[in-house]
Amino acid sequence: MAIGIGLDVGGTKVLGCAVTDAGEVVAEARLASPATKEALVDVLCACVEAVLADLGSPTSTVVGVGAGLPGLVDRAGVLHETANIHDVAGLDLPASLRPRLEGLLGSSAGPLVLVVDNDATCAAAGEHAFGAGQGVTDSITVTLGTGIGGGIVTAGSIVHGERNFAAEVGHMVVDPSGPRCGCGRRGCWERFASGTGLAYLARRAVLEGRAPGLAEAAGGIEALRAEQVVAAASAGDPEAAAVVGEYADYLALGLGNLAELLDPGRIILGGGLAAAGSVLFPPAIARYEATCRRGSGPRQVPVVTASLGERAGAIGAAVLALGVLG
Amino acid sequence: MAIGIGLDVGGTKVLGCAVTDAGEVVAEARLASPATKEALVDVLCACVEAVLADLGSPTSTVVGVGAGLPGLVDRAGVLHETANIHDVAGLDLPASLRPRLEGLLGSSAGPLVLVVDNDATCAAAGEHAFGAGQGVTDSITVTLGTGIGGGIVTAGSIVHGERNFAAEVGHMVVDPSGPRCGCGRRGCWERFASGTGLAYLARRAVLEGRAPGLAEAAGGIEALRAEQVVAAASAGDPEAAAVVGEYADYLALGLGNLAELLDPGRIILGGGLAAAGSVLFPPAIARYEATCRRGSGPRQVPVVTASLGERAGAIGAAVLALGVLG
Repeated sequence: MAIGIGLDVGGTKVLGCAVTDAGEVVAEARLASPATKEALVDVLCACVEAVLADLGSPTSTVVGVGAGLPGLVDRAGVLHETANIHDVAGLDLPASLRPRLEGLLGSSAGPLVLVVDNDATCAAAGEHAFGAGQGVTDSITVTLGTGIGGGIVTAGSIVHGERNFAAEVGHMVVDPSGPRCGCGRRGCWERFASGTGLAYLARRAVLEGRAPGLAEAAGGIEALRAEQVVAAASAGDPEAAAVVGEYADYLALGLGNLAELLDPGRIILGGGLAAAGSVLFPPAIARYEATCRRGSGPRQVPVVTASLGERAGAIGAAVLALGVLG
Repeated sequence: MAIGIGLDVGGTKVLGCAVTDAGEVVAEARLASPATKEALVDVLCACVEAVLADLGSPTSTVVGVGAGLPGLVDRAGVLHETANIHDVAGLDLPASLRPRLEGLLGSSAGPLVLVVDNDATCAAAGEHAFGAGQGVTDSITVTLGTGIGGGIVTAGSIVHGERNFAAEVGHMVVDPSGPRCGCGRRGCWERFASGTGLAYLARRAVLEGRAPGLAEAAGGIEALRAEQVVAAASAGDPEAAAVVGEYADYLALGLGNLAELLDPGRIILGGGLAAAGSVLFPPAIARYEATCRRGSGPRQVPVVTASLGERAGAIGAAVLALGVLG
């Protein structure tokens, strides 16, 4: 039985999982995220060591290591733009990792497979192979958090794009009159449908006099966060419910676009915001089904919640290393 | 040398091409488009006969026939929604065509390959294999006409989607405050960036008092067509140039989204509107390059004009029949 080790580098922690080619997680470790470029390689290697210690079995069954990082990663595994960790653009992570990981893992089973890719791409690989995407040939995983990431699987294979920068679904413009995005355009999907977007919609509602109670409860417009909107909506607050309704419209808009563009068998909603999925997702899915021309009949593209939770990225990084997907 | 026959069913004509697996068009025929469902199979078979007559060589080299039709075509080649021809939804075209085409083409070379797909998908296959997409692994072809169609190639293979309905790029919403689309949503890309969209933008400019001369020259707002806007802009009319500028903004918006979503090596602009490409495309490409974060440096996704002209769909249908793409 082949085992892959997957690493998911998040804003606060690095999660490592040892995953069998049948999708079973057989070992796990977590370490604090590195703050610097120099610490990144050390922390990744330490996480592999910690996973191996938890695994306990001989390392000869480990055929590969995968790592998912936020931002753009090219075909060679070189980081371009990244979030959270300062100044890592240009870092050739595979070149730095390979000698140290080969030292850790030996080479009796042939050259170590080493894959570095975008974290949402990894999550999509994990959900498609062993999570909510099982049973379809084409799936799109949308990771909703501070921003919006994505990964696309078609005919059972990850869509990488020419340069490996595909599936930046958060930077699809859905409303050109919307707020400026860090990418330079206006009205990107993640300006509305991420956690940051939910906070924006709430603050806009306050500014426009539609949600005075929300700002008061939060102690001011600047202190208003997505979490507070979700909590207030859960408690039945009508102002918060109205903001969640606007959020649902924008989330549905992008989901409809993805259905039109790629006709997946399933769209999977994951990421940190999925923890608030019971509040945020049902109205969005209802709106999507009501407005999208694929929302009914044989052309329906179902929208579902991710099933691998916070492990999706690490499991998916292992999936890529194992070569489970084409 | 294997030959495929490709058929492209347009609004006014059916174009047939015999194409070698090296991309050479060695025979051609065109017939008037059928107006009824009953006539469709007859016309397609007659077009194959006419291509064979033009070809003159023995039919044993013809390994397959492909046909592209407007609208949605499922994996089995059954038509769902279609434009132009009334009431063809549900027609199992391969089942109707196979016995007659096998009669025409013999079966000495094994079972005839028969492929029926969306016309823009065919155009994308043609451009990728033998046109403006040569030399990249990933390309998107956008066909601009009355509406907007599309075809996506990634890692050298057509993206079909789970049900074969992928690449409906014209129904990507780019402005939710835009006009209602026939699909049920509002502000779809083809409401703005197709020929119909250009006419809409011109009429809106007239309504808003920004283009009185355009309406006068056309003999009224309802008579105003895309062709007139293009002609006036070519002649240096400032009102028309302003409308073309708006058109360019919307075309650029969707192109930027496609670049973000799929990171192709090239985006290819084709379809009937490409005849006016010298007027319409340069401002759109300039706008795209200025606004899209992939518009400069190593991340640039070039936008180019299609190179196969009106034959793209027929050549691409032959490409699909020949199995040139994965």
